[in-house]
Amino acid sequence: MSAGSIFLWELLGTTVLIMLGTGVVANHVLRRTNGNGGGVLFINIGWGFAVFTGASVAAPSGAHLNPAITLALAVADKTAWSDVPVYLLGQMLGGIIGAVLCWATYKLQFDDHDDPAGTLGIFSTAPTIRNSFWNVVTEVLGTFVLVAFVLFSPVAGPWKGEGEIPDFGNSALGYAGVAFVVLVIGTSLGGPTGYAINPARDLGPRIAYAFVLPIKGKGKADWAYSWVPVVGPLLGGVLAALLYMAYPA
Amino acid sequence: MSAGSIFLWELLGTTVLIMLGTGVVANHVLRRTNGNGGGVLFINIGWGFAVFTGASVAAPSGAHLNPAITLALAVADKTAWSDVPVYLLGQMLGGIIGAVLCWATYKLQFDDHDDPAGTLGIFSTAPTIRNSFWNVVTEVLGTFVLVAFVLFSPVAGPWKGEGEIPDFGNSALGYAGVAFVVLVIGTSLGGPTGYAINPARDLGPRIAYAFVLPIKGKGKADWAYSWVPVVGPLLGGVLAALLYMAYPA
Amino acid sequence: MSAGSIFLWELLGTTVLIMLGTGVVANHVLRRTNGNGGGVLFINIGWGFAVFTGASVAAPSGAHLNPAITLALAVADKTAWSDVPVYLLGQMLGGIIGAVLCWATYKLQFDDHDDPAGTLGIFSTAPTIRNSFWNVVTEVLGTFVLVAFVLFSPVAGPWKGEGEIPDFGNSALGYAGVAFVVLVIGTSLGGPTGYAINPARDLGPRIAYAFVLPIKGKGKADWAYSWVPVVGPLLGGVLAALLYMAYPA
Amino acid sequence: MSAGSIFLWELLGTTVLIMLGTGVVANHVLRRTNGNGGGVLFINIGWGFAVFTGASVAAPSGAHLNPAITLALAVADKTAWSDVPVYLLGQMLGGIIGAVLCWATYKLQFDDHDDPAGTLGIFSTAPTIRNSFWNVVTEVLGTFVLVAFVLFSPVAGPWKGEGEIPDFGNSALGYAGVAFVVLVIGTSLGGPTGYAINPARDLGPRIAYAFVLPIKGKGKADWAYSWVPVVGPLLGGVLAALLYMAYPA
Repeated sequence: MSAGSIFLWELLGTTVLIMLGTGVVANHVLRRTNGNGGGVLFINIGWGFAVFTGASVAAPSGAHLNPAITLALAVADKTAWSDVPVYLLGQMLGGIIGAVLCWATYKLQFDDHDDPAGTLGIFSTAPTIRNSFWNVVTEVLGTFVLVAFVLFSPVAGPWKGEGEIPDFGNSALGYAGVAFVVLVIGTSLGGPTGYAINPARDLGPRIAYAFVLPIKGKGKADWAYSWVPVVGPLLGGVLAALLYMAYPA
Repeated sequence: MSAGSIFLWELLGTTVLIMLGTGVVANHVLRRTNGNGGGVLFINIGWGFAVFTGASVAAPSGAHLNPAITLALAVADKTAWSDVPVYLLGQMLGGIIGAVLCWATYKLQFDDHDDPAGTLGIFSTAPTIRNSFWNVVTEVLGTFVLVAFVLFSPVAGPWKGEGEIPDFGNSALGYAGVAFVVLVIGTSLGGPTGYAINPARDLGPRIAYAFVLPIKGKGKADWAYSWVPVVGPLLGGVLAALLYMAYPA
Repeated sequence: MSAGSIFLWELLGTTVLIMLGTGVVANHVLRRTNGNGGGVLFINIGWGFAVFTGASVAAPSGAHLNPAITLALAVADKTAWSDVPVYLLGQMLGGIIGAVLCWATYKLQFDDHDDPAGTLGIFSTAPTIRNSFWNVVTEVLGTFVLVAFVLFSPVAGPWKGEGEIPDFGNSALGYAGVAFVVLVIGTSLGGPTGYAINPARDLGPRIAYAFVLPIKGKGKADWAYSWVPVVGPLLGGVLAALLYMAYPA
Repeated sequence: MSAGSIFLWELLGTTVLIMLGTGVVANHVLRRTNGNGGGVLFINIGWGFAVFTGASVAAPSGAHLNPAITLALAVADKTAWSDVPVYLLGQMLGGIIGAVLCWATYKLQFDDHDDPAGTLGIFSTAPTIRNSFWNVVTEVLGTFVLVAFVLFSPVAGPWKGEGEIPDFGNSALGYAGVAFVVLVIGTSLGGPTGYAINPARDLGPRIAYAFVLPIKGKGKADWAYSWVPVVGPLLGGVLAALLYMAYPA
């Protein structure tokens, strides 16, 4: 697949993923919405099926939508290293555009919100208790589960040889499987840090929040924390790839 | 497929879709039901699987059940323009009949309800903050996601050539996929306008409410807003179709 | 398939279905359980996947588990009339045994409950507003949707000829599909009468409650209402079968 | 498959299962998490898809992840008795490691929790009303449903001959099916004892809690109850296997 095509599919899929994922948090947080106070299961289900939808429309490029997955696949010899930058570019740009489309969907609610300074949490993650080491550990473990699923599970498609992209079993269920896994990572490992488990999911919307979105009275972008949801997921993905290579065939 | 068959299948599917979809809101809103106050996730799940059920029983016609999908498929050369009117007719009539069957299911609860003037929301959508431009934007974006899924995703069936209907992968999972997408559109983009994302879903029940249903003390049909959930979805669907045609094969 | 085998598979499947279905209501109602006050979505999800589990283990007989489905299939010439009594016998006996196993699971909680006279609702349905005609209408419509799904949807298996049992697409998804449909019938049409939509589901546990279960201080079995969740579902199933036969191929 | 491979796959799958399963309870119980007070449906969904994820990554060994399943398969002649010890070893060790990884994920929250003595419930089950006989009955019935599904359902893969492992239909849906069954066992039969239905799920984390986890102020491990979630599930699994062998082909 050409670099241009990879870019376009990853851009489309990540845009849809982030628009829907940040959207469910907006619906829960903002005060004049139908979903206000929808709760944690509501958010976890929203993010889970956001991944279903985004991955599903990006089938041709393998639907990585996540630098941690792309890096892990490169480490595991399933994606060419030369394709990695174009994957990342599409993902990061998709993260930014998705955040903008979420804002456009909820524009009137942002204008009306009573705590505009507290709206960063709609777009990017934050820990409930701040501690760099343990926050990284939490993100490593969450991403490890996600990438282990992509690499080990027949649901995400058998790895028939080097260089192949995930084919999600050539069937629709693979995408549902990823949604189920992201749902359970949210319910089970998302308590401490809000399960970024994807640098593009966290950094893209954070950039959008800081530099693009015209939210009146918006707060700071918390750059001091911003490296955790980048480094943690990348580490977790690499660990899963190393385990995958060490396991018996 | 003959025009008569298209009409009959779209009529059946949309009737089931709207009966179930308006039903979950009735169950949440009306005061003497088992589902009273069931909440936003309850409603989103109900609408999601309403689409599963309605689409599933309307397989032969491609299970459009939505003028925005039919129009997008016509723009993308997947449905003949000459079939469009018969699709729309079946969908609109199904929307009206579905609303009547929802009313019949909850007849005793409507009679007993303490706020009959507030029952329009069971049948048709309304914005939490009224603003024509941004309400249209929200409906455009929600419908864009739905139609992009139908066009781009292998879950909804590969497009093997011009004029084919969606085949939902010739498997049952396609219908589950559509349900998941409608569920997440609800959780994530439904906050501001109640995600009509389907002119037949909104206008059909509104017509039923205004002219057919014998609800004592019922309120107005809010015709001033009624064009938004028609124009927004049609625009969103066409945008998705144009993007589909512009994307690389 | 021999009558004895039909009986054994329907017995197994209906026992599992009813044990799980009445179990989720027990978990919600009884005061010293982990699920006390779990809510309406909790109950709807429990009943939905109760059907998944029960149907899934009863594949050889077609997993009817419901006299309304058996009758509809006989009317539609898909099940031999001579097999109907043995289907019903397995279903009714399974309904009774399932209720007993639910009671055994929650035996300590039944002994400890503060309102033993109010425990009929764990086993059998009751209307929120009593009115024979409209209660029947509600049960007719709910069952119509269920049986229409079984007959019309490719998810439940194509009907290749007369006398065939449903094969649920020869794949596992058919069972998930039925679960989704029962879930949405619950969320959307279950508000007024508690969606029996299955005579064996209501009458079997009612018989167990009245004559078998040793619950101290238990209430009456409400025989005056007991015919509604039998007649309504049978009527709804027959209506769906008649529509199925009238539809174009 | 070599004993070493069986061990490694069962270890991986059970580790993932228990990390996610105990994680959702930690998220619900601990006071400074995003999921605090998430509720019973939240927990049931988390455990259900924990099984999906764990089973999915352990496909090569048949994804037992549960001594009750391994024992039942041995009784039913589907797993060699000589392989049973290595299955159990992988499962028990996975249960311990999974609990440790759950603790690591929530380390900061454990340090901050206001009731450290009450944290056993995150890792192991306890009855709401203590009574050895009826608690065993409840665990027997819950496990019976799980193992009956694995043995009887085409969703979990047809049993084509002796000695074969479950193949989950050679498709991804089998794993979703197990998740649905565990979800409904939770909603419907989990009220009295917290549905261990798996000795490795209960005993492994209990050992980790008692001897490994450095939780300050932690409580006792309740060894007096610890045999119930071992004996009950093993009995329930054997009963399902015996029924399976007695049933007609």
